[in-house]
Amino acid sequence: MKQIAISVGDLNGIGIQLILENHYRIKEFIKPRYCIDRAMLEQAANLLKLPIPHDFHCVTEIGQSFTITPSHITQASGAYSFQSFQKAVNLAKKKEVDGVMTLPIHKKAWELAGVHYKGHTDALRDFFQAEAIMMLGTPQMYVALYTEHIPLYQVPQAVRNREKLTRFLVDFYYAIASDLKTDESVSLLGLNPHAGDNGVLGDEEETIRQARETAHQMIGKCVYTEPIVPDVAFTPQRRKHYRYYIAMYHDQGLAPLKALYFDEGINISLNLPIIRTSVDHGTAFDIAYRHQQLNNLSYLNALRYFKTT
Amino acid sequence: MKQIAISVGDLNGIGIQLILENHYRIKEFIKPRYCIDRAMLEQAANLLKLPIPHDFHCVTEIGQSFTITPSHITQASGAYSFQSFQKAVNLAKKKEVDGVMTLPIHKKAWELAGVHYKGHTDALRDFFQAEAIMMLGTPQMYVALYTEHIPLYQVPQAVRNREKLTRFLVDFYYAIASDLKTDESVSLLGLNPHAGDNGVLGDEEETIRQARETAHQMIGKCVYTEPIVPDVAFTPQRRKHYRYYIAMYHDQGLAPLKALYFDEGINISLNLPIIRTSVDHGTAFDIAYRHQQLNNLSYLNALRYFKTT
Repeated sequence: MKQIAISVGDLNGIGIQLILENHYRIKEFIKPRYCIDRAMLEQAANLLKLPIPHDFHCVTEIGQSFTITPSHITQASGAYSFQSFQKAVNLAKKKEVDGVMTLPIHKKAWELAGVHYKGHTDALRDFFQAEAIMMLGTPQMYVALYTEHIPLYQVPQAVRNREKLTRFLVDFYYAIASDLKTDESVSLLGLNPHAGDNGVLGDEEETIRQARETAHQMIGKCVYTEPIVPDVAFTPQRRKHYRYYIAMYHDQGLAPLKALYFDEGINISLNLPIIRTSVDHGTAFDIAYRHQQLNNLSYLNALRYFKTT
Repeated sequence: MKQIAISVGDLNGIGIQLILENHYRIKEFIKPRYCIDRAMLEQAANLLKLPIPHDFHCVTEIGQSFTITPSHITQASGAYSFQSFQKAVNLAKKKEVDGVMTLPIHKKAWELAGVHYKGHTDALRDFFQAEAIMMLGTPQMYVALYTEHIPLYQVPQAVRNREKLTRFLVDFYYAIASDLKTDESVSLLGLNPHAGDNGVLGDEEETIRQARETAHQMIGKCVYTEPIVPDVAFTPQRRKHYRYYIAMYHDQGLAPLKALYFDEGINISLNLPIIRTSVDHGTAFDIAYRHQQLNNLSYLNALRYFKTT
């Protein structure tokens, strides 16, 4: 069973409630190491009127204690959430844990605390000076994004960059290789309607084919499908055969994914020296510390990702 | 109850089986007028070993009889399927029916018969010299496409054409106005990831906003939403509030649609002097006349579209 460092996110948000309520569930598939000081844990548990599980293992000396102010954006909470994240990453760097799972932080709170990163992925790229690959999904279906946050008009030229696309395909394969079953293929999407319809509706599929070919030579085996017609790729019949998808751009992959699995999705950073997952929702200040029932599917899936098969 | 002309499609394919097996079902919501000669009907029914319903109303004098050759691409079948389609359209032109529903034809068979259109929509644009709007979907969710079969790199410049987009929004509104409930909004999608994130990830959303504004002035009411973040537009929560979507490009709308409702989808041609629906599948030569159970959801939905509410 893998040991996973869990950073607590913004303590004014819902993260700590997810942690406390799901401890006994997640223990069934990973060994959690929660990056929170005992005093902060007790404060949150009191506010939430939730018991602290007897075998709750904290990694302590995270940062300076502060008074939790539910649903507020504060400098202190921003600073603490960044320190909890740093601690989790450092544990993974030192191989004291097998991976990191991050609960949501608030970007404005990081800003108030003088943390200049826009989010976890941004920080990880800087920590490791590496090109993280962003993958989102659920155990039924994961979508990795070749391009992420760029205007749509820039996507075709990025796809025409054969070297970059080849490297992406090779990197992605090695990032998930240990999870791929023998003969399991990864669904590689085309760019244009009908995957270009033999060049009539765009020719970037030709570059995708060439990148695929070179990647296969470098990997030494055939892993990726031919560029698939994008609007057919996610039909139920297709989904039976594929768990992993490569989308050429953000909405090509995420619109079908969120249509199908909105509440269950997680975010995974691959191609780094460590593996990091996170929930696919925010701090949810509107329902934090209101003693409401939370949807815990994303949290459970973010940890289930590390389940040893 | 509306009268609908049904063109039989390629008689070597599955269309006629759908017709015969679903007659009693569709009679509950429309009055069908099947565009097929009695001799051809009897030939197909014999091959299928299916009874001809006693109240089966044929529009006759379609074209020259021929021998059905299941699953084959033939000139005779191509010619007949085009004539059946022409007959259905002419009935609608003369207001003898309220709409047209087309069963699948085979493009190669049309080619063999000297019919130079690529498909029904192409032919309709020529018959009426009008800009048909292509809409696909199910009674739960319809997606109209602003751009259709063009390479992805051409999409942003098409969206930047404010006049064309405005006209599209006005035309689409009038095409579905009679079906819109009071205060029902149509979901208008952005183009870029996160709908441009205030211009950081592209600025075409600004054109979409302007086109929307002008369209609202021309229509005299507020119908369309602000440009919605594309990967959030189709989540279950959103879908509760919208039946109609405007997608800026083919896969933006059709990938989520087919992920959710693959077998049930239909195709609708709007903005023509007549309304035409069709199934969203082909002639299925691989299972034609094999006495197999067919999936009839698309056929039923294509006719249910005309159901008088």
